[in-house]
Amino acid sequence: MAIVLGHNQYGKAEIRLLHVSRDDATHTIRDLNVSVTLSGGLAATHLTGDNTAVLTTDAQKNTVFAYAKEYGVDQIEDFALLLARHFVESQAAISFARVTIEQYPWDRLGGHSFCRSGREVRTAMVSYDGRDSWVVSGLRDLILLNTAGSEFWGFARDRYTTLAETTDRILATAVNARWRHAGALTREPASTGLEWSGPGWADSCCAVRELLLAAFADTHSYSLQQTLFAMGRRVLDGRPEIAEIRLSLPNKHHFEVDMSPFGLENAGEVFYAADRPYGLIEGTVTRDEAPPPGKAW
Amino acid sequence: MAIVLGHNQYGKAEIRLLHVSRDDATHTIRDLNVSVTLSGGLAATHLTGDNTAVLTTDAQKNTVFAYAKEYGVDQIEDFALLLARHFVESQAAISFARVTIEQYPWDRLGGHSFCRSGREVRTAMVSYDGRDSWVVSGLRDLILLNTAGSEFWGFARDRYTTLAETTDRILATAVNARWRHAGALTREPASTGLEWSGPGWADSCCAVRELLLAAFADTHSYSLQQTLFAMGRRVLDGRPEIAEIRLSLPNKHHFEVDMSPFGLENAGEVFYAADRPYGLIEGTVTRDEAPPPGKAW
Amino acid sequence: MAIVLGHNQYGKAEIRLLHVSRDDATHTIRDLNVSVTLSGGLAATHLTGDNTAVLTTDAQKNTVFAYAKEYGVDQIEDFALLLARHFVESQAAISFARVTIEQYPWDRLGGHSFCRSGREVRTAMVSYDGRDSWVVSGLRDLILLNTAGSEFWGFARDRYTTLAETTDRILATAVNARWRHAGALTREPASTGLEWSGPGWADSCCAVRELLLAAFADTHSYSLQQTLFAMGRRVLDGRPEIAEIRLSLPNKHHFEVDMSPFGLENAGEVFYAADRPYGLIEGTVTRDEAPPPGKAW
Amino acid sequence: MAIVLGHNQYGKAEIRLLHVSRDDATHTIRDLNVSVTLSGGLAATHLTGDNTAVLTTDAQKNTVFAYAKEYGVDQIEDFALLLARHFVESQAAISFARVTIEQYPWDRLGGHSFCRSGREVRTAMVSYDGRDSWVVSGLRDLILLNTAGSEFWGFARDRYTTLAETTDRILATAVNARWRHAGALTREPASTGLEWSGPGWADSCCAVRELLLAAFADTHSYSLQQTLFAMGRRVLDGRPEIAEIRLSLPNKHHFEVDMSPFGLENAGEVFYAADRPYGLIEGTVTRDEAPPPGKAW
Repeated sequence: MAIVLGHNQYGKAEIRLLHVSRDDATHTIRDLNVSVTLSGGLAATHLTGDNTAVLTTDAQKNTVFAYAKEYGVDQIEDFALLLARHFVESQAAISFARVTIEQYPWDRLGGHSFCRSGREVRTAMVSYDGRDSWVVSGLRDLILLNTAGSEFWGFARDRYTTLAETTDRILATAVNARWRHAGALTREPASTGLEWSGPGWADSCCAVRELLLAAFADTHSYSLQQTLFAMGRRVLDGRPEIAEIRLSLPNKHHFEVDMSPFGLENAGEVFYAADRPYGLIEGTVTRDEAPPPGKAW
Repeated sequence: MAIVLGHNQYGKAEIRLLHVSRDDATHTIRDLNVSVTLSGGLAATHLTGDNTAVLTTDAQKNTVFAYAKEYGVDQIEDFALLLARHFVESQAAISFARVTIEQYPWDRLGGHSFCRSGREVRTAMVSYDGRDSWVVSGLRDLILLNTAGSEFWGFARDRYTTLAETTDRILATAVNARWRHAGALTREPASTGLEWSGPGWADSCCAVRELLLAAFADTHSYSLQQTLFAMGRRVLDGRPEIAEIRLSLPNKHHFEVDMSPFGLENAGEVFYAADRPYGLIEGTVTRDEAPPPGKAW
Repeated sequence: MAIVLGHNQYGKAEIRLLHVSRDDATHTIRDLNVSVTLSGGLAATHLTGDNTAVLTTDAQKNTVFAYAKEYGVDQIEDFALLLARHFVESQAAISFARVTIEQYPWDRLGGHSFCRSGREVRTAMVSYDGRDSWVVSGLRDLILLNTAGSEFWGFARDRYTTLAETTDRILATAVNARWRHAGALTREPASTGLEWSGPGWADSCCAVRELLLAAFADTHSYSLQQTLFAMGRRVLDGRPEIAEIRLSLPNKHHFEVDMSPFGLENAGEVFYAADRPYGLIEGTVTRDEAPPPGKAW
Repeated sequence: MAIVLGHNQYGKAEIRLLHVSRDDATHTIRDLNVSVTLSGGLAATHLTGDNTAVLTTDAQKNTVFAYAKEYGVDQIEDFALLLARHFVESQAAISFARVTIEQYPWDRLGGHSFCRSGREVRTAMVSYDGRDSWVVSGLRDLILLNTAGSEFWGFARDRYTTLAETTDRILATAVNARWRHAGALTREPASTGLEWSGPGWADSCCAVRELLLAAFADTHSYSLQQTLFAMGRRVLDGRPEIAEIRLSLPNKHHFEVDMSPFGLENAGEVFYAADRPYGLIEGTVTRDEAPPPGKAW
């Protein structure tokens, strides 16, 4: 029974890039964290140390910087598409590339001054196999909290269940959402890699954000699972370009402090915000006729 | 030569408290991280394990929660004053208390829905010795960046200096600012601990923030030290209630990527955002006749 | 085209548990971080907020603590097996459970005194679907460094390749290894869940660690990929109970500092340890006739 | 009332340096994190942006690397002394330097292979004012735990005290210890900066570690304060070269899980390890005739 190499991949992770557009007196910035993952015919370097097929991770880093210069950086989905296609099409050994980008948001203070907004991080994960491309957009660390409209009761009870039922609890989470854009892009021979730009990744992302916030805020919740599904459904209802959304929602517990030992009544006013453990609720909301995910995830 | 106990202090650190005001249909929240430090006649517990004088850190935690219930939480400086005075005045052994609070900002989504803004953290550090109180307010992790208006040249050169002079660099920092309010408060016998509320801690903090941002954005900078002093002076110029401000400014280096090996010219467009090492510029800006700091820091 | 619920799961994450065995004067401790993930017939809570099928994450946490009391904690694989089986077999709605445990190592100072060793973390991930169990053991954050015996040359060159070839570099990584034990366990009706304890998870893990260290240290490396495969092969060669090992190896770059500007020659003596970006090399080493992985991962 | 510049300082923080000694087939490594802080006549750069007196933080970084090459790195106290003296003596504007170093420990696997031990970090903080030097050595993140021999009772009780007294609790902490070596070093005109090497920083540090561990393990504790003083006294008793030790001990709470709802009795076997809040006990143990600390801290 021989020992063999299975799935393998490599790349450069966490390339921290700031791009400045100086087209006029008003500068525009993009603050990114780019990671590249490549796979393909890489058995030789594993088995014998023959690196003929290895594009160095240092060159991958250089490419990210050079492409930012050559093509600029507008929407992270487009920038990731450009990079993913470059690696597969320029390297004979590479049959699959995934480029993942995080974008940190900044507010404008002036023509060339900026303040990090601290809001959630926007993400893109683009995959390309030499024929099709898949685009997954997302938001990470979008922290939400409701002080009313959340109940939790009627759950299963076993020997180890001590939780009291409640019709009024704090519901708080840090949304990690990723949504798959409908359908793979099949590469046209003469395409520039920018053919998806039309409808607007930025508009789509902004709209998804608003839908997520609205659904969180106005869903009367009987479980975080219910809120999760409501958020996902709201997004798919509102955005036909999205085939599927995956949500990972930690339940950031806020426990009402028992003040009876001090002779005080705590009527939902003072809570202890716990770190660990935390509930973790994860789910996918999709369309029943959505195109297959292929290699998107 | 005997071995003796020197300075000592103890307390409960990082009490994570969420306070909800439900006075009407529109809820208001305060999201705090409170730390208490006490000192005084605590030799016995160190030397013999006699805990007669020790108010447990668990009770300190309970007090923070109970005070939030009993007095509500509006401005963190007031809440810290109340707590600091309580510990000193209620415990014979405790002669000095310091209460430090971090406040995390939230944006409103609806009457009882909120989104963490991710902006900088507001801080307060209040000290009380049984007679006087000192209040230090602050902001932490206010991340700023200028893409123009920053030069650095004419510096000292020694054998190990290789840095090129520049008349155009990225200037980026994460402001950690703390400012001391003028004068200690001397405790009036019948005071409630809230006598400073009048002028408004919130207004003061908000104004300091705007002054810091404006000075960062509109100072043509020849060094981060110059920017630091300009920021501090702007605050003192604009806010007479502030005696002194201390700024700690990491120089978050952004290095222009050399693209000459790729046959490209990088005209201030693409930068590598470095993590470590980083410059760290720290300084105090004060008034020449400021009241002495006492035990404020 | 309807909007539907896709894959979903939930559980309690990061339950920090310390177990103390006090059987005699010499205490033994287990310091764990346990996470539970359950899935099954949970559509109702998502779609309508009907929680009838939901075993609360609070009860899951309680169960972890109670099982530590009732059954003790020896090997984390066994403890995870017990828990995974309990959740599936006691809850009609739950058809799949995964229990993930991290164990923090401590050194003994005395009969009841311990010092955290700070060595790598031992991990276990156990999955159970009501019939079969899968066990994946692992080590995380095992940081290794070679100052000799590492070359990197002969790699592909493109327009963006500037890296110099080298026959002597620092090779450093933080090993994240997970290995799948051969074959699923099929549940015997009367089994206790402990039937795998015989050969010894601890012995197996300890042996894998030694094999990983030895392969890292004595492989003359032409690429980190080659080292990865050598480490995996060494483990499979030495441990027949292991079907497959997955290695994730960040290339923790150490760059030789150029001292020519100071008139000094740096002959492989002084390095700058970089944080980001980093290479990330990942691969699986397996047996060509290994049993299928099923739901192990 | 004029606005003036107060105390200020600057430097390069977190220079990550790996030094390899290749004197023979058996390599030796030092893995350091070095931070430099300088102060002196730096008003001009703050007030006008005149950088004539500013040694760049980039040059400081280069100096740390170059000195590692020129002088090697053995004990971190000596390396910090060399650097601190260099900056003050070579720069007219600099009147005070502080060099802080963290050293990460590695275990040897072979002649040129190493495994990060993960044990506590060794630290040094050296200050020099052009005449005197002060040396503070330390250990950070030395995590200790006793499962017996710890009581806590007889403490003060107020309205907010609910903690139960106990004669058997878990006592756990992460020791952050810094100790000042007796007396400032007065610079001899012809000294090399290495005159303190004789007795051995490494021996001293190793001995302090053993004394701290022994005192933690064998002190029957009635409070963490008592344990703190016992640890400090043990060190001063055993090491005449040390004038003063400062200990910062977080009380890493482990709460016994109440299992009565499950019909189980938890006899000190199962604990929940809490993250926040935590007690924080800090104290200095010194000699009554210790030389004054000067600018050591």
